[in-house]
Amino acid sequence: MAAHTRQRLVRFLAKDGRTYYGDAILPPGVTDIGKATQARVIHGSPFDRHEVTDTVVDVRLLLAPLAREDVKTVRCLGLNYERHAHESGMPIPEHPVLFYKPVTSVAGPFDPIPVPASCQAVDGLDYECELVAVIGKEGADIPESKALEYVAGYAVGNDVSHREWQLRRGGGQWALGKGFDGWAPLGPGIVSAKLIGDPQALRITTKVNGQMVQDSTTRDMIFGVAQTVSRLSHGTTLLPGDLIFTGTPQGVGMGRKPQLWLNDGDVVEVSLEKVGSCINKVEYIKNKPRL
Amino acid sequence: MAAHTRQRLVRFLAKDGRTYYGDAILPPGVTDIGKATQARVIHGSPFDRHEVTDTVVDVRLLLAPLAREDVKTVRCLGLNYERHAHESGMPIPEHPVLFYKPVTSVAGPFDPIPVPASCQAVDGLDYECELVAVIGKEGADIPESKALEYVAGYAVGNDVSHREWQLRRGGGQWALGKGFDGWAPLGPGIVSAKLIGDPQALRITTKVNGQMVQDSTTRDMIFGVAQTVSRLSHGTTLLPGDLIFTGTPQGVGMGRKPQLWLNDGDVVEVSLEKVGSCINKVEYIKNKPRL
Repeated sequence: MAAHTRQRLVRFLAKDGRTYYGDAILPPGVTDIGKATQARVIHGSPFDRHEVTDTVVDVRLLLAPLAREDVKTVRCLGLNYERHAHESGMPIPEHPVLFYKPVTSVAGPFDPIPVPASCQAVDGLDYECELVAVIGKEGADIPESKALEYVAGYAVGNDVSHREWQLRRGGGQWALGKGFDGWAPLGPGIVSAKLIGDPQALRITTKVNGQMVQDSTTRDMIFGVAQTVSRLSHGTTLLPGDLIFTGTPQGVGMGRKPQLWLNDGDVVEVSLEKVGSCINKVEYIKNKPRL
Repeated sequence: MAAHTRQRLVRFLAKDGRTYYGDAILPPGVTDIGKATQARVIHGSPFDRHEVTDTVVDVRLLLAPLAREDVKTVRCLGLNYERHAHESGMPIPEHPVLFYKPVTSVAGPFDPIPVPASCQAVDGLDYECELVAVIGKEGADIPESKALEYVAGYAVGNDVSHREWQLRRGGGQWALGKGFDGWAPLGPGIVSAKLIGDPQALRITTKVNGQMVQDSTTRDMIFGVAQTVSRLSHGTTLLPGDLIFTGTPQGVGMGRKPQLWLNDGDVVEVSLEKVGSCINKVEYIKNKPRL
């Protein structure tokens, strides 16, 4: 077998009915991994020994780029873009504003966003496009100058949030309004850090039903990826498979005038330059008990 | 082999130098799993097919009762005891106040509590004894009447917290001050739900250097275990290996007059009736970079 270096890690359902890890094959000039129709099969673990084989298979559907057993802790930052902090009426944070999502919130780039009954009863469903850094190597107390060596690659994600449950019904802690099943779609794959180059020079956008609602650059981040990885690793071991959602820029539904809340059937597209787009449809769950 | 039913799941380093899952053997009249000197070896996964064998081995040291790969999401409740809500000057919550810890915070019943440099520089290190419910079966939207069927068993844990980082430096989100490596010691084992009976009728205590500082009962919980499991499963799949720290009673260091902060070398003992005690020594980490 020829030796290939992994560039765009994807996990997918193939036309043969099986699920694989693979290295996405993109047509010339295309950078959106979501457009991949073929991939080279990868054998082995995504963060350990693996081999990109010569076996090319047809992609039926891209899945969450990591299997649930390969995802460890999902960390997220709040208020990490200057203009978003301003629109939220919050001061620029001195330390990262950290919260978590459960592994069950991870979903694929084209999966629906299931909305449980308690979140249908009141306005507040919102989108947040985010650059997601994927940790590839275990480490703690990582200096900022070495931090990017711990990042295997980058994806784009949507930190789906219900503002009423996040801000008013959770006693001030954001977890209740951000942790539902499937509320952290990401993908469409994980682009290698090498291919990305500078993670602070990427356009990041959200469209709702085709209309652009967030359009910014990762340059506006308060704690850049290197600083974030360094700070979050203080006294804390980061593991391969940890995901860091690095915060969202201005333009969230809550900050708009008038406010823009997502509803059943709305389609949200979050995009990151050099990575691609996740396109997820809001799906109200029927006939479930209400809290 | 005889068929044994697992009663007290432990994970331990044996005198033979190997690490096992086992069913703790306690002398007659003893209920503290921490006193176990022998255990029957368990083969298989703690939440799936397993067999309690006839092989008895000698325990050298009890470890975190679940291996890191068997722990999924670590959920915690804040302000879940009435008298603790009062001492914190907070209203009784209408919904659970939820936050998370990373899997790397999980530690064993006799492990040290490592304190990184940033938490040595300012007062605020505190203890919180908590009943920990261990989910044994996957489920979502679980009705309260069936919720206890999803609990495999119970342990006692310490939700170690640094109040300065939790309350003042994290932008209002508690994660920074609660998620350091080893800040969720638990154990000494997981007692089967059957053996526990009613989880809302257990004495729960903390001693610091031998002095009793928390002494309450799980009857004072605002959201009992059944209600907690039901509420947290709304729109959210709970997985085998999920841990739920169910909040702490009155008597935390922050709420005392004068306040009582933990320091290097202090020994904290959290205990739960029918389960036993975790005894953890505070250990300041030396020579680490300060944030």
